[in-house]
Amino acid sequence: MTDPLPPGASVGILGGGQLGRMLAVAASRLGLSAHVYEPQAGCPAAQVAARCTTAPWDDAPALRAFARSVDVVTYEFENVPTAALDAIEAIRPIRPGRRSLAVSQERLAEKTFLAGLGLTVAPFAPVEDAATLAEALARIGTPAILKTRMLGYDGKGQARIDRAADAPAALQAMAGAPALLEGFVAFDREVSVVAARGADGSVAAFDPGENVHRDGILRTTTVPARLSAAQRSDAVLIAARILNALDHVGVIGVELFVTPAGLIVNEIAPRVHNSGHWTQNGCLIDQFEQHIRAVCGWPLGDGTRHSDVVMENLIGHDMDRLPALMASGAALHLYGKAEVRAGRKMGHVNRITGPAPR
Amino acid sequence: MTDPLPPGASVGILGGGQLGRMLAVAASRLGLSAHVYEPQAGCPAAQVAARCTTAPWDDAPALRAFARSVDVVTYEFENVPTAALDAIEAIRPIRPGRRSLAVSQERLAEKTFLAGLGLTVAPFAPVEDAATLAEALARIGTPAILKTRMLGYDGKGQARIDRAADAPAALQAMAGAPALLEGFVAFDREVSVVAARGADGSVAAFDPGENVHRDGILRTTTVPARLSAAQRSDAVLIAARILNALDHVGVIGVELFVTPAGLIVNEIAPRVHNSGHWTQNGCLIDQFEQHIRAVCGWPLGDGTRHSDVVMENLIGHDMDRLPALMASGAALHLYGKAEVRAGRKMGHVNRITGPAPR
Repeated sequence: MTDPLPPGASVGILGGGQLGRMLAVAASRLGLSAHVYEPQAGCPAAQVAARCTTAPWDDAPALRAFARSVDVVTYEFENVPTAALDAIEAIRPIRPGRRSLAVSQERLAEKTFLAGLGLTVAPFAPVEDAATLAEALARIGTPAILKTRMLGYDGKGQARIDRAADAPAALQAMAGAPALLEGFVAFDREVSVVAARGADGSVAAFDPGENVHRDGILRTTTVPARLSAAQRSDAVLIAARILNALDHVGVIGVELFVTPAGLIVNEIAPRVHNSGHWTQNGCLIDQFEQHIRAVCGWPLGDGTRHSDVVMENLIGHDMDRLPALMASGAALHLYGKAEVRAGRKMGHVNRITGPAPR
Repeated sequence: MTDPLPPGASVGILGGGQLGRMLAVAASRLGLSAHVYEPQAGCPAAQVAARCTTAPWDDAPALRAFARSVDVVTYEFENVPTAALDAIEAIRPIRPGRRSLAVSQERLAEKTFLAGLGLTVAPFAPVEDAATLAEALARIGTPAILKTRMLGYDGKGQARIDRAADAPAALQAMAGAPALLEGFVAFDREVSVVAARGADGSVAAFDPGENVHRDGILRTTTVPARLSAAQRSDAVLIAARILNALDHVGVIGVELFVTPAGLIVNEIAPRVHNSGHWTQNGCLIDQFEQHIRAVCGWPLGDGTRHSDVVMENLIGHDMDRLPALMASGAALHLYGKAEVRAGRKMGHVNRITGPAPR
């Protein structure tokens, strides 16, 4: 695919959560038709997509029919099972590509890839059992964090080790899954860069945002992040280097720790990212449209920031504040999820805090 | 309905063209579900709405089922047949209300209403036949424009009369329909105000835009419009006066002529308006969300302009310029219409021309 997909073409989206929902809306804005594939019925994206296939990830005929019905396939999350990707890729291109998925699905591959680019990452060591954990702890020291290598998100599958005595419980929390010990990084703040790479190799980065997590879940992103000019430029260059090394086509989220010794890459997500939601109200072209433009072979859009923004996630019973939020003058984005549950991302709100220098 | 509709509630939208499409997207952004009613299959709004009923305007059972399935009904165009409105209104509230529809569906009622508010309108006289046309021409003079009283849009159903000899052909162009003669207004420019009134009676106006038409179709809207501070404030006050007089709930578009003698009201549309499309990329909350907020009983949002914008409609073969537009750095909005036809609105493009003073 070298020409941009024309209006009327169809974009397949794997996953029908809020990210798939906002990707589908962005596709429709460009005159493209969105077809979502999602195992759960009544998913958020189904309400806004032209088409939705409800089928499990191991339904090969459904996957093949889905692939044949679209012109290109993208995804809202990086943990799509490999067999599903294989079935689809035999029929239509998947963007971002398999290399981007491989390095972000598995923490050991991710750290190895990033370190191989010469980027600074936290000290890490693979852990399979008590013996390798003891070895890793001896090398890395405490505090450290033991993480499953796969399928971790929003703080799940992680256990902190503050002293050697914590090791057995941490290992038990991995439930036998291959793990990775990471040295604890003392950081001043966490920032992220959401950036896009087009099918033509061009790269465009949104301004870095400063993130605050609570209980392992992103609570707020503030733009601009408190960074020096040199750190800002470093952050963007790191994202560009990763995009190019992966031959990535689409948006990527790169989480960085700001430390006195420089920027440390925490992790990458080969997709639109929660910390990029501020772009919906801070930029002419937001991360969702930028991603759709990239995967459909369009030129990237203008992601210059026109306003300073604070994005706040609405999680679980944050929804009790809805009446006040409705009247607050902020931009609300709700995901159409019927049931409020603790820890569930129900929506987000973007507050403009001032004009950006232009 | 006094409380705001909660997330998960359903908004019925009569008409599935591009305005219905963009209203459906705005509803989904607020966690509301959009149900579109549209006689034509494969309409633009169907691709983004949670539900679409395809049935004609005289299908009473379909209209009733539609009304029962939603919490409130709004519309994308003012010419919904009265019988359809009656069937729906027996079941669910229609917002904006019947008075807003009545005065904007029929030009004589519109002019009479506006003049009754003390607003300046072009001189006008009802025309039924050659005799009343001659009488009207004697009073109003030439040049003048003969217009059908109903169902006119985008310059259709209009005939210019430059001299008395043009009268028979103009009358013939009305095809026997009741008409209205309007005196020709020599204006410096045309502007419009898109404004909203909430269910609580609060009013919020977007900044006036300056419109350029060609062949009776809007081509561009430029914001800010070239207006003095006094004219700007007059324009907004006129819109507020109309909104309050109609007890209007929702967005209205008010077209104004700027003349040396002051602002003259050309026409009103009780709905989101093509000249308000710039708000999608110039304001935190755009006209579509403002309309949904109003009709769902939510507080109005912050429609402050953060950027100066030029909106250009993409009509018919303007789509041939798509490759250049994709790469232009402007924000594209395409409507998902498969067939390009001369005069057909295919999309629009918003170009940011600079920051607005804040």
